[in-house]
Amino acid sequence: MSATKPDPKALRNALGTFTTGVTIITTRASDGTPVGLTANSFNSVSLEPPLVLWSLAKTAMSLPVFTEAEHWNVHVLSMDQQDLSNRFASKGEDKFKDLALDQGVTSAPLIGQCSARFQCKTAFVHDGGDHIIFIGEVLDFDHSTLPPLAFQCGQYALTARKPWEGVQLSQSEEPLDCNYNEDLLGYLLGRAHFQMMQGMQKELARFDLSPAHFFAVSVLAIQGGIDLTSLNAHIEYTGQSLDENQMAQLVHSGLVTCIGEKYALTDKGHQASLGQIAQAKAIEDDLVDEIGRGDVTALKLLLKRLIRQTDPGLPDLWSDAVRGAKHD
Amino acid sequence: MSATKPDPKALRNALGTFTTGVTIITTRASDGTPVGLTANSFNSVSLEPPLVLWSLAKTAMSLPVFTEAEHWNVHVLSMDQQDLSNRFASKGEDKFKDLALDQGVTSAPLIGQCSARFQCKTAFVHDGGDHIIFIGEVLDFDHSTLPPLAFQCGQYALTARKPWEGVQLSQSEEPLDCNYNEDLLGYLLGRAHFQMMQGMQKELARFDLSPAHFFAVSVLAIQGGIDLTSLNAHIEYTGQSLDENQMAQLVHSGLVTCIGEKYALTDKGHQASLGQIAQAKAIEDDLVDEIGRGDVTALKLLLKRLIRQTDPGLPDLWSDAVRGAKHD
Repeated sequence: MSATKPDPKALRNALGTFTTGVTIITTRASDGTPVGLTANSFNSVSLEPPLVLWSLAKTAMSLPVFTEAEHWNVHVLSMDQQDLSNRFASKGEDKFKDLALDQGVTSAPLIGQCSARFQCKTAFVHDGGDHIIFIGEVLDFDHSTLPPLAFQCGQYALTARKPWEGVQLSQSEEPLDCNYNEDLLGYLLGRAHFQMMQGMQKELARFDLSPAHFFAVSVLAIQGGIDLTSLNAHIEYTGQSLDENQMAQLVHSGLVTCIGEKYALTDKGHQASLGQIAQAKAIEDDLVDEIGRGDVTALKLLLKRLIRQTDPGLPDLWSDAVRGAKHD
Repeated sequence: MSATKPDPKALRNALGTFTTGVTIITTRASDGTPVGLTANSFNSVSLEPPLVLWSLAKTAMSLPVFTEAEHWNVHVLSMDQQDLSNRFASKGEDKFKDLALDQGVTSAPLIGQCSARFQCKTAFVHDGGDHIIFIGEVLDFDHSTLPPLAFQCGQYALTARKPWEGVQLSQSEEPLDCNYNEDLLGYLLGRAHFQMMQGMQKELARFDLSPAHFFAVSVLAIQGGIDLTSLNAHIEYTGQSLDENQMAQLVHSGLVTCIGEKYALTDKGHQASLGQIAQAKAIEDDLVDEIGRGDVTALKLLLKRLIRQTDPGLPDLWSDAVRGAKHD
């Protein structure tokens, strides 16, 4: 770290390292028009009396409305409300278009599906340089279990929460001189994958499916009517591939049909695949119950980023698909 | 969401949904004693002039020192500074014990290894219910590339940042009626694991190792001198296991030695394992360069939480180990 003289852009970058939630703050103009904007300058101040604060740029078009308004609502956005955040951060009109509002204790617009909401009455207004600081008394509030959206270094973010007791897989302290330890990403990915596959075992055993068979059924559930070469192109990165004998086993078990040189799932194959997907989703749902939907979504986001970075150039599984999994 | 009447505990929980960073704020008493505390009530206020704020409980023992002090520093903590956060959040003495301080532009203590630091001079002090709001002018600041620590719903957290362009693996829009899609956690874990294994391929090909062989070498790198049953107990959850013929191949290739019924790595086996670990770490380092150390650490944290939840009762790989990987 090297000290620098205050410079607005560098200062903004430094301030951005402080993680925040994302809020939408709403009020109503004297003519009844709803007004709102996205802000991450929110913070709690006091519990007794209940006070919160946020600040608004003096150049903001909505400043006169907020300084005149007696009441405003703070909405702590959930991770599913990123689009709403963008909408209220833009200068476009009609921010409230098609937005169902709840009835609050004041006339200020109250948006639903948030992580928390605070209905406030202006208590103090302070000058804060190029911003005005609004301090409000919380008249009413509520909160949900919806995982919150976060913001850090100019990007939206999800959070991976750390349990207070920590997360260590091994009961024993690892020796410092052991090169192979449980903090190695490759180990964690392998163990996580194979433990998930263990949870699939019952579904796979029903049809006596090997992992390679399972991968083939999964590909055919998305892309029906492809030949063995195309099928294997989706599977070979797993270190496995299927030959005609293995495909014959799938045909023999009634899961797959072969017309010409093209393979597709039979109705029984579709049912088997749906059972496998349902099982995979059940494992995922259990995990959501245990570690939280926000954390599972963060995990999936990070896995996608890893997959994109380490992609060896796999064919697009979902493109040009003769969809094999159509169901109502 | 259901509205409730203000109640301090419920209010605290609702306010906790707003994600924050974690800061340590320091100053020096008139007698020169360094004083500091952990706070997440920090926020930026203004860029021109540069102003930031934070609030301090009126009951805080350090309140008189901060109201008297002219200068204070805000440290936005990095994800590696969780212990420091806990230390400054406690009432214990000697918070600054063994803490190397940097030279700042004022006499306020300046702590290193943070994500960002703001050296401030009190500009305004406002009453805020049971707290006092300090607004400071930023005299100097700096920031590093160290990933920041976050806090949400009473827990420390790491962040999984969302790129603005989003993360979609497939080029095509997925049909709504396709049950198997790229958002299925099981798919993402499998694909991530096998892509990582692809990156290992060159190291494994050097010794003509199958995945099962690789798993065996990895276990023996940690637990040397175990019999085939014990070895397989660590591997079987992968759906693979080794028989005596496969072990004989490893012995034949010079990587493994068999004394009695116990297997252990030879020197050549240790070298091979170190090469594999180095390759796994190189892949991980590349990923850190691409998506950031904070995000990779968040991924590992989430994988560990998943592994703990889905653990079928695997034997502890690192316990009672006759360490096989000792190297200086």
